[in-house]
Amino acid sequence: MADKAATVYQHGTLSLLVPGLFTGTETIGTLLQHGDYGIGTLEHLDGELIIVDGEAYQASQDGLIHHLPASQTVPFATVHFDQPRSTVTVHDMHQMDVERYLLNHYPYKNVFFAVKLTGEFSHMKTRVVPKQSQPYPPLTAASKVQPIFEQNNTHGTVIGYFAPPLFSGVAVAGYHLHYLNDQHDFGGHILEYALTSGELSIQPFAALHQHFPLDNEDFLKQNFDYGSLDASINQAEH
Amino acid sequence: MADKAATVYQHGTLSLLVPGLFTGTETIGTLLQHGDYGIGTLEHLDGELIIVDGEAYQASQDGLIHHLPASQTVPFATVHFDQPRSTVTVHDMHQMDVERYLLNHYPYKNVFFAVKLTGEFSHMKTRVVPKQSQPYPPLTAASKVQPIFEQNNTHGTVIGYFAPPLFSGVAVAGYHLHYLNDQHDFGGHILEYALTSGELSIQPFAALHQHFPLDNEDFLKQNFDYGSLDASINQAEH
Repeated sequence: MADKAATVYQHGTLSLLVPGLFTGTETIGTLLQHGDYGIGTLEHLDGELIIVDGEAYQASQDGLIHHLPASQTVPFATVHFDQPRSTVTVHDMHQMDVERYLLNHYPYKNVFFAVKLTGEFSHMKTRVVPKQSQPYPPLTAASKVQPIFEQNNTHGTVIGYFAPPLFSGVAVAGYHLHYLNDQHDFGGHILEYALTSGELSIQPFAALHQHFPLDNEDFLKQNFDYGSLDASINQAEH
Repeated sequence: MADKAATVYQHGTLSLLVPGLFTGTETIGTLLQHGDYGIGTLEHLDGELIIVDGEAYQASQDGLIHHLPASQTVPFATVHFDQPRSTVTVHDMHQMDVERYLLNHYPYKNVFFAVKLTGEFSHMKTRVVPKQSQPYPPLTAASKVQPIFEQNNTHGTVIGYFAPPLFSGVAVAGYHLHYLNDQHDFGGHILEYALTSGELSIQPFAALHQHFPLDNEDFLKQNFDYGSLDASINQAEH
């Protein structure tokens, strides 16, 4: 495995979203230099980011999918170069089955790994965070009401990451997965799915390249409340 | 600031030391490709690692300093290429004064930064973790009894890092500093010091490059007890 494919790159941390640091601090153009698949959110918390095959898409709160220009900025995103270590054909599984299968069949619970699942889903349920305006509210308020979308018999790609619990707050501990269908008219942050059949890939990483918005004054000045971080994240992300 | 100097590289995590994963999983030779200054520990938890000016040294439990070959391995170490953003001349400060000064005068509390302090110390007190043998005990047992060393009127280099609390367990949260004197006959993990005069440098990082021992089976299989991690680390490191 080439060194490039052994690294997952993340800009920003999940924690900086908690107090409402939703300003975009890195461009999609820069992100794509670090990976061709990935997930995240956009400036103003304006929907869900899904990067598939080197192209970046926004699932927005109106249910539409927009192709994103290189100039679009993000406060938080994770990307990698797709080069799976292992791919298997799977049938008739629910989200929980897939997540357990990966942890039971591969020895990667203590590192970051990417999950890619391309196939036919009898059911897919997503949510999309709604766009915020300044002064930004905290994440728990911003994510309190989120539109939910569902599609049956949809063909597309699940993409995302597993992060070991040690990195809770840096990333989403455990699984964090987004979806984009092949027609590019449905997607978002995955709440649940049922797979009919598909190709399931796992790509473990030897390294996390964690990038910080070192030139963003609001981030540098923020007094993070580490004590309440986990509770806020659990409320917003699950 | 060049990209190379904007990145701090870490092999292993502080957490993997907690259950006793003291096997060396990266060589000093590889480490030095990622930095010319740094700190860490050695295989078997055999003392304190101090990297100064591209050379790696071991402070061992017998109080001696040994120059390390490229083939020596480490379970946990942090390095960077020394290129300070700011350097000031300082006088008559204790460790606490220096640590407060940096956090009060620079806006880097939410990112990783390197600290380098070269000068004359009226007093320096260090400790050195003693070498362990397999089966390795947990870190709290291994670090229970540690030799302490003191030197007055010593000239040398303090080198180490500040890590934001979000990365507690990944690294040592807050400051983690080692010392090596100019004669290379005294050093270790710093417990306290009093500076007479010196040059104090700070180097903030835009990125953490966190590397995992992905080929080490003991690491991959370890069931980390995240609940007791902070308590174990506090007992061992402070």
